[in-house]
Amino acid sequence: MPALTDFDEFRDIAKRVNNWGRWGVEDEIGTLNLITPDTVRAAAAAVRTGKRFALAVPLQQYGVQTGLIPGRVNPLHTMVALNWEMFGPGAIATSDDVVTMGLQAGTHWDGLGHVSHGGRIYNNRPAGNAVTAHEGAVRSGVEKAPPLVGRGVLLDVARARGVDRLPGDHAVTPEDLEAAQELAHTQVRAGDVVLVRTGQIQLYLGGDRDAYAFPSPGLSLRTPEWFHSRDVAAVADDTLTFEIFPPEVDGLYLPVHALHLVEMGMMQGQNWNLEQLAADCAEDGVYEFLLSAPPEPFTGGVGAPVAPVAVK
Amino acid sequence: MPALTDFDEFRDIAKRVNNWGRWGVEDEIGTLNLITPDTVRAAAAAVRTGKRFALAVPLQQYGVQTGLIPGRVNPLHTMVALNWEMFGPGAIATSDDVVTMGLQAGTHWDGLGHVSHGGRIYNNRPAGNAVTAHEGAVRSGVEKAPPLVGRGVLLDVARARGVDRLPGDHAVTPEDLEAAQELAHTQVRAGDVVLVRTGQIQLYLGGDRDAYAFPSPGLSLRTPEWFHSRDVAAVADDTLTFEIFPPEVDGLYLPVHALHLVEMGMMQGQNWNLEQLAADCAEDGVYEFLLSAPPEPFTGGVGAPVAPVAVK
Amino acid sequence: MPALTDFDEFRDIAKRVNNWGRWGVEDEIGTLNLITPDTVRAAAAAVRTGKRFALAVPLQQYGVQTGLIPGRVNPLHTMVALNWEMFGPGAIATSDDVVTMGLQAGTHWDGLGHVSHGGRIYNNRPAGNAVTAHEGAVRSGVEKAPPLVGRGVLLDVARARGVDRLPGDHAVTPEDLEAAQELAHTQVRAGDVVLVRTGQIQLYLGGDRDAYAFPSPGLSLRTPEWFHSRDVAAVADDTLTFEIFPPEVDGLYLPVHALHLVEMGMMQGQNWNLEQLAADCAEDGVYEFLLSAPPEPFTGGVGAPVAPVAVK
Amino acid sequence: MPALTDFDEFRDIAKRVNNWGRWGVEDEIGTLNLITPDTVRAAAAAVRTGKRFALAVPLQQYGVQTGLIPGRVNPLHTMVALNWEMFGPGAIATSDDVVTMGLQAGTHWDGLGHVSHGGRIYNNRPAGNAVTAHEGAVRSGVEKAPPLVGRGVLLDVARARGVDRLPGDHAVTPEDLEAAQELAHTQVRAGDVVLVRTGQIQLYLGGDRDAYAFPSPGLSLRTPEWFHSRDVAAVADDTLTFEIFPPEVDGLYLPVHALHLVEMGMMQGQNWNLEQLAADCAEDGVYEFLLSAPPEPFTGGVGAPVAPVAVK
Repeated sequence: MPALTDFDEFRDIAKRVNNWGRWGVEDEIGTLNLITPDTVRAAAAAVRTGKRFALAVPLQQYGVQTGLIPGRVNPLHTMVALNWEMFGPGAIATSDDVVTMGLQAGTHWDGLGHVSHGGRIYNNRPAGNAVTAHEGAVRSGVEKAPPLVGRGVLLDVARARGVDRLPGDHAVTPEDLEAAQELAHTQVRAGDVVLVRTGQIQLYLGGDRDAYAFPSPGLSLRTPEWFHSRDVAAVADDTLTFEIFPPEVDGLYLPVHALHLVEMGMMQGQNWNLEQLAADCAEDGVYEFLLSAPPEPFTGGVGAPVAPVAVK
Repeated sequence: MPALTDFDEFRDIAKRVNNWGRWGVEDEIGTLNLITPDTVRAAAAAVRTGKRFALAVPLQQYGVQTGLIPGRVNPLHTMVALNWEMFGPGAIATSDDVVTMGLQAGTHWDGLGHVSHGGRIYNNRPAGNAVTAHEGAVRSGVEKAPPLVGRGVLLDVARARGVDRLPGDHAVTPEDLEAAQELAHTQVRAGDVVLVRTGQIQLYLGGDRDAYAFPSPGLSLRTPEWFHSRDVAAVADDTLTFEIFPPEVDGLYLPVHALHLVEMGMMQGQNWNLEQLAADCAEDGVYEFLLSAPPEPFTGGVGAPVAPVAVK
Repeated sequence: MPALTDFDEFRDIAKRVNNWGRWGVEDEIGTLNLITPDTVRAAAAAVRTGKRFALAVPLQQYGVQTGLIPGRVNPLHTMVALNWEMFGPGAIATSDDVVTMGLQAGTHWDGLGHVSHGGRIYNNRPAGNAVTAHEGAVRSGVEKAPPLVGRGVLLDVARARGVDRLPGDHAVTPEDLEAAQELAHTQVRAGDVVLVRTGQIQLYLGGDRDAYAFPSPGLSLRTPEWFHSRDVAAVADDTLTFEIFPPEVDGLYLPVHALHLVEMGMMQGQNWNLEQLAADCAEDGVYEFLLSAPPEPFTGGVGAPVAPVAVK
Repeated sequence: MPALTDFDEFRDIAKRVNNWGRWGVEDEIGTLNLITPDTVRAAAAAVRTGKRFALAVPLQQYGVQTGLIPGRVNPLHTMVALNWEMFGPGAIATSDDVVTMGLQAGTHWDGLGHVSHGGRIYNNRPAGNAVTAHEGAVRSGVEKAPPLVGRGVLLDVARARGVDRLPGDHAVTPEDLEAAQELAHTQVRAGDVVLVRTGQIQLYLGGDRDAYAFPSPGLSLRTPEWFHSRDVAAVADDTLTFEIFPPEVDGLYLPVHALHLVEMGMMQGQNWNLEQLAADCAEDGVYEFLLSAPPEPFTGGVGAPVAPVAVK
């Protein structure tokens, strides 16, 4: 199997977008450093109508996962107490529930510990020490992310291309992002969280998990540089694989994961439901908003469920 | 065992704060109806410095739970893939994790299905039909909550009383809330989310889970009426039990749970870490902020983990 | 939906095989009462060659379950410690693992709490009280089963019918059992555990879980009476559904489950791998053996994994 | 931290008991090779009364574990279906359950992958390759154990020393085993499974989990040689730690684990309840029996729950 760096294109991009050391050798949060009090204030200023949009799919057993990714199980939700009169008959009754689930099973963030290449995770840390069986992500665990609230911008690539949903073999290019940015009437700025809409999640919402999973449109390996040049803080989209899958280059698997998570130190979000938000943006022409999307702080998590909210 | 309604004081308060039917017989979200586009805009306007405060405790095996509440297990976080070269040696390596946990194990919201009394949950629904073993909360599941973003107000009762931490037998009264509101230099308004600080969570943060659990200061059964009269949308505090425990009235267990969740239809939050936020509020004298605290949308959940963020 | 007792054939058989009260009103173990010191000694006497046969399929994520039965999840096995030097570098290293699984996910026993009909489980107990969300099977939980060791007899129906594997629409009849008994050169006796081989599990072993699940040959509703008249202690076979599925009579779902578990109080086993045992029996003509198959004693379990062993 | 082999006594014993290569370089089951058709027939011949004894403690949330061993969680048993009429109202109703548990939480076998020292597991395999985060025990997983049925011998050390329960600081020595063997009126032979009784589990059965856990009597590091010289197939006892804990030699942690599992390749059992069996043996003077104790076959398991049965 070739290494990622055996591909010239990957290697060249990797050099250009690399952020190792940019925020110091001890840094564990990467591009989340780009969200600052200033950008947060600007995010709050983007709120105009007070409308709120939930961007998570419900967490349930018939969730997004189909079994393709070993161990990434859909939520199994069960009751451990059910209308239980714990203090005696006639007293108050309580119900309690538990769940078993993959942290990346539903709408989630990939944490910086999720992937490595060449034996390294973000900031040049040896993967074997940085992510362990016993503690998970010793370095760059999701619990270390500062509260992820900032300005969000929707780049509705499907709409910009005049379709409801991109076809399964469409790689979202920098040119697509430019066109969607033009549609959005705003410039992506430092510290922004960018949401890229492909429409792919319609397949899941329509009941066809297998079609949703694969093949899937998604980001091209040429897009990380676009995000890097604008100092984007994080990127999420509405697909299972995040990037186009099967990959654009034969044998070059998950290059966008490697560029974002390892080279740039940028969290990325998957399985976000952008449909209602996109409809509203199309209606009023406003594609910016305050986005609140803090990962659930699992100690050592290499990923985390999130219930993102856009406030326009 | 006496029923809650065998206690005169409870029965009288219950009548006065009851919201059944207020938003229609089909309503499942109760006081979250009080958050409106107007209140959300006001919340955004409360952002001044752009400072963000995370209010969740990390989710980990040595978490808040001590085993007192059967089945409410602390998060057990394990790796299902570890630096795994799924596409072959030399290719990108991925790590994946899973968790088993009680939905109310850490920083969480109690959903409206969490308790019943007299065989009823919120809005007069028979508990036996509304919460089932197979589906959990068929009615008022946490996944039905609209995105919980609104104005937050910190009522720092400990500080208002001149202590770092309230003693374990202190019931927070309406008078305490008034004093804390005065300290806050703002009035609690319709649609607000109120955070009540007792300082109790210092015990957990200091490593003593047992002392944190019990005995615990917390809300008096006289406070729901205070929240009701101001049309508060939700209330959270920094204790395990939320309300004072052991209870104020012998044999009257969890009356505040019953009043908030069942009578008013108001979600309540527990195990919130308000320490850093409180320090900042004390410093700049500003106790209002934008609060983002959407519950993770577990279908049928009677509770949900949340990673709340306050933005000042 | 018609009740089971709306079907004349079911109702008549139910009356004839009913064991309620037979071992007293307090009894919770049903036909396991039929295994006695005498039958156990006879089982030991059946051991001649000392050959042992494992009858369980491995417990693993790619197990028998396909998702058809909600919540009955295949085992998810993960490491919580991995070569961990808990006492310091250089000291002994330990590995530890955890599992999440349906108790009936793999090779298992159905406990007597697994099904009810007409609101009753075995021995006329109200299902609502006998099996609860909080405690599981308060009555007839699998942990109450006495150690299940006794004489086993293999009834190789597939072989008796001259095929490797019965077709998916074949209902195993009393006549089939007679023919297989003749092949076995032994009489089924009181206290025996009968293993019925259809060959269906070859489909699973061959990698086709969906074909294994459904349609499936299995026991006809006419067989419980055959077992009852011989005072069999328990029955297991090599299918997912145990009885023929889809059912023989339109609208009469799982009648054998109802007859065995509810009326007779007889545990039944599913997903047993009888292939190697059957090959050996065919070779030496001996179809009896000591069978050890104690259910894992989960308190309140309505089912339990089992690792059965036949000793010839 | 000193390595185990820095201790002369350990190093010398390790050399004498080492079984690496004894059954070939590909062997993964160690001393289970010593159970043969002959020893199994002898085990069956040991059955005289037909009495059966269950040796497992029930699997339940208030189980043996106290939280001392990270991740080794007690069973959490929940219902995923409860008297559920899956085919429609009036039809048969089913209940289903799931569990999350440490494989070594209750009565269990330590598999040969459970510990390593000097970077090696049994048969000189590198621990890092033999046990992985993704697959668990790639080598010597518990699913590879042949059906564990053989002759069992109870060595009741407590009784031989004239006490109900050994004190917490008592290391069971070869001399203790000799005395107990004399009491047993049988010689331990090749292929036997030896059960050593200390009485310690009385503390757990009496409700005091903490006292049960620690300090605990258990096997001395001098006993592995005794078992080795007799070619014992496996050993189990009635303690949490198996060997005496705190250890006999300062800084020499878990030497018996290392000798049994790594050097000899011998599985060892913990948390076995030997009380009823011991009472019967004391009464009739017969300390041998057929023992059936197959580990649940978890693929890759480094340990496994077991429901052992002794048949006298």
